[in-house]
Amino acid sequence: MARLIECVPNFSEGRNKDIIEQIVDEIRKTENVKLLDYSMDADHNRSVVTFIGEPDQVIEAAFKATKVASELIDMTKHTGGHPRMGATDVIPLIPISDVTMEECVEYSKILGKRIGEELNIPVFLYEKSATSRNREDLAEIRKGQYEGMAEKLKDEEWKPDFGPAELNIKSGVTAVGARPPLIAYNVNLGTSDLSIAKKIAKAVRAKTGGFTYCKAIGLEIKERNIVQVSMNLVDYTKTPIFRVFDTIEREARRYGVNVIGSEIIGLVPMQALVDVADYYLRLENFSSDQILERKIFE
Amino acid sequence: MARLIECVPNFSEGRNKDIIEQIVDEIRKTENVKLLDYSMDADHNRSVVTFIGEPDQVIEAAFKATKVASELIDMTKHTGGHPRMGATDVIPLIPISDVTMEECVEYSKILGKRIGEELNIPVFLYEKSATSRNREDLAEIRKGQYEGMAEKLKDEEWKPDFGPAELNIKSGVTAVGARPPLIAYNVNLGTSDLSIAKKIAKAVRAKTGGFTYCKAIGLEIKERNIVQVSMNLVDYTKTPIFRVFDTIEREARRYGVNVIGSEIIGLVPMQALVDVADYYLRLENFSSDQILERKIFE
Repeated sequence: MARLIECVPNFSEGRNKDIIEQIVDEIRKTENVKLLDYSMDADHNRSVVTFIGEPDQVIEAAFKATKVASELIDMTKHTGGHPRMGATDVIPLIPISDVTMEECVEYSKILGKRIGEELNIPVFLYEKSATSRNREDLAEIRKGQYEGMAEKLKDEEWKPDFGPAELNIKSGVTAVGARPPLIAYNVNLGTSDLSIAKKIAKAVRAKTGGFTYCKAIGLEIKERNIVQVSMNLVDYTKTPIFRVFDTIEREARRYGVNVIGSEIIGLVPMQALVDVADYYLRLENFSSDQILERKIFE
Repeated sequence: MARLIECVPNFSEGRNKDIIEQIVDEIRKTENVKLLDYSMDADHNRSVVTFIGEPDQVIEAAFKATKVASELIDMTKHTGGHPRMGATDVIPLIPISDVTMEECVEYSKILGKRIGEELNIPVFLYEKSATSRNREDLAEIRKGQYEGMAEKLKDEEWKPDFGPAELNIKSGVTAVGARPPLIAYNVNLGTSDLSIAKKIAKAVRAKTGGFTYCKAIGLEIKERNIVQVSMNLVDYTKTPIFRVFDTIEREARRYGVNVIGSEIIGLVPMQALVDVADYYLRLENFSSDQILERKIFE
C-alpha cells in the first residue's frame, strides 16, 4: 500500500460556510491528497476536516489550510460552545499505512515549524509529538482557552515549541501532533437505567481506573428507551475494541443487563476490525498481508 | 475501489518450472493485471496461479495463459496425484470489488467461448456459470478424469458448453466458471483423538447435513499432537466463518474438547473478516464504507 497519513484539523469557524469552503479548497487543490469529509457545527462554531494522502503533500495541504484560516478567522470575535485556543485549533496527524508513529512525529515538527515561522503563530506539539509530559494532553495545553493564552504564554512552562513567544491576537495558538487513529465506539445496553451506563463507563475509562486508551461516558438514547456507553478509543493497538466490548458485556451481566448492540461511528482503520476477528476466531499466525484487498494496492 | 476480478487457474504441470514460468509470463505481461502468487506441487504435478485485475484484462491474461499451456503441456503424458482433465484444468473467476456474480458469469462465458473456438478445447461452464444442475460441481464434470473424457463426451448429457464435441487429445478439457472467493479455514482442537475431528467435520460439512457452503475433513497435526477440522468455505456470504467457528466450538465442547485456535490459509477477502467483527461486536448499521482504507481507493 502507499504511504499514507490522515489529517483531521479543527478550525474555529462553524457558521460561515464561505470561509470553511475557502479553507477546504486549499486541501482539495493539493495533489495526492484526498478530502474525505468535513462537518460544520454551528453551536460549537467549529469545523472538523478529514483528509488523507502522501505525507509531504498532507503537510503542504495542512499548512495552506492553516494559512487561509489565519487570514479569514478572527479569534477576537469568536464565540462557541467548544473549548478552543486558535483559528486553526488543532492539527492531528495519524499514521495510516506504511508510516510509523515516529515518522508522523517528525512530520508534525516540520508542519509546526512552518506554521510558527511563516505564519507567526505560537505552536505546541501535543500527544505523541509532545516535548514534555504536560503537553501530551490537548486539554492541558488548551486550558484557559484563547482568552487566557496571552497570560499563559508568559509562563516559562508554556513557552511554545515553535513560533513567537507571544500570542498571535488574530489567530491564537495552534496545537500540532501525531496520534493513533481514534475510534468512536458505543455499546448499547438493554435497559433504560442511566446509572448502569454511567457505572460501566466508569469501569472502562482510563480516568477512573479502566483501560488506558479509553474515554467513556454514560448516555441515554431516549428514542430507543435504552442507555449507552459512549466511548473514544484513542489507541486501538493498545486498548482494542474487543477487550472493551467483552469487559462491558461482563460488567452489564453483573447488573442483569444485556448488551444489545454496538456502533462504530465514522471511519475505522481496517486493522482494528481485523484484530477483532483475530481475537474471537483465536487465529494462529494471521497476517493482514493475507487480506486480498491489501495485495492489490501493494 | 476499482472493478476487480480474481482468477485462479490450475495447470496440469507441477514439475517443470520452465513451462510454468512461460505460462505465468503471459499473465505478467498483461496490463492492469497483477500476479499475486503461484505455487507448483510436484506430487500432484499441478500448479495454481493467482492473479487479479480489471475484468477484460483478466480474461485476456487467462486466455493467453491457457493458449501457452495448450502448447507446452501434453496430457497424454501427464501423471500426478490430483484429479485432472485438461492442461488448463479449471479457471475460476471470482468477483472481488464492484463486480457482481452475474457479471462474472458473463465474463466466464466470453472466456469459455474463446478457449473453445480459438484453441479447439472442449469447455464446460461450472459453479455459478453452470448451464445445468449436474455441471455446478467441478468434481462431477471431472469424474473419469482425462483418461475417461473421450468416452464421457460422447454422452449427450456431457456435450461441452463451448468448443469441439470431441476431446482435444493433447490439451484435454477445461472448466471455466464464476464462483465466490474460497476461504481455506482450519480449526484446531485440543485433543489428539482424530475421531473427534472427523465427527465434527461431518457435523459442519454440506455433504453430511452441515452448512451448505462448507467442505470439511478431520486431520491429524502430528507435530503438534492435535487434530484439526480442515475446511473450504466456498461462499462466505452464506456460510460465514463465525457461524462455522461457533458451531465447531459447541460440538467440541460436547466431547469435552477445547478449540485452541483457528487458521486462515492464504488470502481472504476483507469483507469476510469484517463480517466476523460485525457478528461478535453485534454492530448496528455498520457499513464497510466506514473502513478508512476503502475510502482512499474509492
